[in-house]
Amino acid sequence: MSAETPRQFHLNAFLMNAGHHDAAWRHPRTQPERITDLSYFQELARTAERGKLDSLFLADGVALWGNARYNAVGGFEPLTLLSALAVATEHIGLIATVSTTFNEPFHVARKFASLDHLSGGRAGWNIVTSGNVAEARNFGREEHLEHALRYERASEFLDVTKQLWDSWRDDAPVIDRERGVYSEEGAVSAIGHRGTHFRVDGPLNVQRSPQGHPLLVQAGSSEDGKEFAARYAEAVFTAQQTLADGQTFYKDLKSRLAKYGRGPQQLKILPGICPVIGGTEAEALALEDELTELQVPAYGLQQLSGMLGTDLTGLPLDGPLPDLPEEQDINGNKSRFTLVAELARREELTIRQLIARLGGGRGHRVFAGTPEQIADQLETWFTEGAADGFNIMPPYLPGGLDDFVDQVVPLLQDRGLFRTEYTGRTLRDHYGLERPAGRTAVAS
Amino acid sequence: MSAETPRQFHLNAFLMNAGHHDAAWRHPRTQPERITDLSYFQELARTAERGKLDSLFLADGVALWGNARYNAVGGFEPLTLLSALAVATEHIGLIATVSTTFNEPFHVARKFASLDHLSGGRAGWNIVTSGNVAEARNFGREEHLEHALRYERASEFLDVTKQLWDSWRDDAPVIDRERGVYSEEGAVSAIGHRGTHFRVDGPLNVQRSPQGHPLLVQAGSSEDGKEFAARYAEAVFTAQQTLADGQTFYKDLKSRLAKYGRGPQQLKILPGICPVIGGTEAEALALEDELTELQVPAYGLQQLSGMLGTDLTGLPLDGPLPDLPEEQDINGNKSRFTLVAELARREELTIRQLIARLGGGRGHRVFAGTPEQIADQLETWFTEGAADGFNIMPPYLPGGLDDFVDQVVPLLQDRGLFRTEYTGRTLRDHYGLERPAGRTAVAS
Ligand SMILES: Cc1cc2nc3c(=O)[nH]c(=O)nc-3n(C[C@H](O)[C@H](O)[C@H](O)COP(=O)(O)O)c2cc1C
Ligand SMILES: Cc1cc2nc3c(=O)[nH]c(=O)nc-3n(C[C@H](O)[C@H](O)[C@H](O)COP(=O)(O)O)c2cc1C
Repeated sequence: MSAETPRQFHLNAFLMNAGHHDAAWRHPRTQPERITDLSYFQELARTAERGKLDSLFLADGVALWGNARYNAVGGFEPLTLLSALAVATEHIGLIATVSTTFNEPFHVARKFASLDHLSGGRAGWNIVTSGNVAEARNFGREEHLEHALRYERASEFLDVTKQLWDSWRDDAPVIDRERGVYSEEGAVSAIGHRGTHFRVDGPLNVQRSPQGHPLLVQAGSSEDGKEFAARYAEAVFTAQQTLADGQTFYKDLKSRLAKYGRGPQQLKILPGICPVIGGTEAEALALEDELTELQVPAYGLQQLSGMLGTDLTGLPLDGPLPDLPEEQDINGNKSRFTLVAELARREELTIRQLIARLGGGRGHRVFAGTPEQIADQLETWFTEGAADGFNIMPPYLPGGLDDFVDQVVPLLQDRGLFRTEYTGRTLRDHYGLERPAGRTAVAS
Repeated sequence: MSAETPRQFHLNAFLMNAGHHDAAWRHPRTQPERITDLSYFQELARTAERGKLDSLFLADGVALWGNARYNAVGGFEPLTLLSALAVATEHIGLIATVSTTFNEPFHVARKFASLDHLSGGRAGWNIVTSGNVAEARNFGREEHLEHALRYERASEFLDVTKQLWDSWRDDAPVIDRERGVYSEEGAVSAIGHRGTHFRVDGPLNVQRSPQGHPLLVQAGSSEDGKEFAARYAEAVFTAQQTLADGQTFYKDLKSRLAKYGRGPQQLKILPGICPVIGGTEAEALALEDELTELQVPAYGLQQLSGMLGTDLTGLPLDGPLPDLPEEQDINGNKSRFTLVAELARREELTIRQLIARLGGGRGHRVFAGTPEQIADQLETWFTEGAADGFNIMPPYLPGGLDDFVDQVVPLLQDRGLFRTEYTGRTLRDHYGLERPAGRTAVAS
């Protein structure tokens, strides 16, 4: 795509309670009793920082995801947790998920600006539109907002938040005690936004932050999702099962940038991988089996029903999937639906096999192997045009992150694929992305 | 009111950028350049904790308050800042203001539960209904929601958040790895709320927190405000200018508790005081004058116009106030309107004098004197039935808080009026308030 292929790739640690595998909490090496304990996440964040990772990331939904009977769900809200983690770390970027469907731009702009100040420029926002009807039902609605409308709202939401972040010029506080002028006339301005979904006067009540705007991250891969990403996102999380799919997605998304006046290096693509690490390949596979053995079938069935928009209860686990709807009829996560449906079709999986395959990464790629094999995989995806970096989803925590940082990262560093020290100060620096220019004073 | 008058009182530090005086930022001993610097607030929080204060508190509005040309306004959003301060402190309570008018109960319940977990049970919520039309205009409205309707919404808001906090039983995570049961059937339950303003299915996606519910604080003193406080609040911030007014308010509010089945000790009343501390009385008065001298008249006039719901621009500063509306016609902060109008009437103040009087505490009582004199004032209000404690509003920071902690607190401790060590673990412990019981398992 780009003439100057970047020499090194980027790594994000996607932290998830006891780990990404849906049975991780049952594994003896996890600590589900600590998921509401700040020190647990402080330790994880410090581990990721020890590995010089670009960022850590917290997913989020505004309903209880999963089923509290069978999984260690719930826990901290991301923006509060990341604010606390800002204090426990110095370099690593802090990416919180916030939905544009159930929030107001003023609140969101403000919280990210605040986190960016708190952390000295390390805030990132994973912009999601929320795909779950349970979320709508916590916000006064019976049904979910329609998919296209969600992205339309998201787009206006971003237009408003960007204006709010720029409502204070970088030079706004002049703090002239003598004259009694805190900021010059015009340095802090209303935005007067009047749109379809929002009407926001502004200005924001937060000074412009170290990064100007938080890093904008996105993770939807439907047509609307990709278009939104091409227009606004600076990093994209994505779930791709095969190198070929990864290459197609990469090419597709990068090719959409030009029409928004953006270059290919202005958006970093980070496919997810759930690395099941073992000292030998056999050990890795044994660990994977051990986790599969711990799965609760009722839970897997419920999750799968949700992803496929199809009630599977009562169907024989060792039989095939029933007929599925078309992607156009899915009002939830369209791209995940298609990925799972195709995986089942391609590999002719039974329901039980599919549940096992999805246990580790809910559709993200799971790869079991030695540190060398995992490093090889990452290198291949990177050099073959499927990734600018990776979203690392440890199957179980804290051990799965320790192993990645202590065993995989050094190999990547030896190969010159990953940094050995932080060289920048902000999250944008880590990803090699520019600080957005703000408004400047009009010459008088 | 109560037979067992408490032996000791409570102290809250109300932190405000450069200090509560509207000219504090111009004073050479303040640090307005640090108001978006976490370390500044960490230092303030540690100072308050050094003084063994019960809590610290951050006010909040969802618009830019004041005028960024003439004052060091803006800065951190409270919930993110307090989450970071939780890490820098061990004992002190952390009270954030959040409006029920421009938020959704699910978000708010969740963030406070998260902060409560993060801080080990130190979260408090100052529940406000927002009185400023500029806030409405950041949330799609042209005019502000009507005062009575705001309190009606607040009431339903509280009903929902309480149910959400109780949607997880305290014993919910059993974490039975063997059986594959994270929480028993019924331990995490939907709330199915259907009301006038909200429809929320629940459950919350956060485990029940150390305090069960955050400490509920309120600060509105209109009729509706007092009724709301009597029903829900466990601590009340209030602005009273004279001991007599303080006593009347105290008696009034405590007398409203019984009809909600509550005892007088279940709500703590904390009048605000802005203590201007000097080694001698003359020094204290000189400091007060110095701050008054630094006031920007245009700013004071704008603030006063807002409080009085009356445009005062162009009026002679050395003349009297014009005719004012009635409280019933004020749709903003009703109690503050009445307080200011009465102060001006009682003391026959010119506009300039009124601006000077309001500079320190925006209507809160300002008292300049020696540490002894300030301790005497607090003791009197406490022993004469006007207060269960105080909301300390340093006129300038950090010095004004240092002086209070280092010079006034020891006197209070010597007199046996204030703790010398923290004896409890949670914010509720500090205030001597019970942890709300949650749902319990239904015997089968
Ligand atoms: C790595 C990754 C993380 C995601 N995290 C979240 C999340 O935290 N919350 C959420 O609501 N959706 C999350 N999603 C879903 C997407 O953001 C998006 O809403 C979803 O893919 C639906 O969009 P689409 O229909 O455009 O694919 C995530 C997706 C990926 C690939
Ligand atoms: C000490 C104190 C602090 C307050 N802090 C806030 C605040 O942070 N945000 C806010 O919107 N209102 C704040 N208020 C205003 C009240 O919460 C309330 O909204 C206002 O008094 C209007 O209510 P009323 O009309 O019932 O008096 C505060 C009031 C007091 C006395």
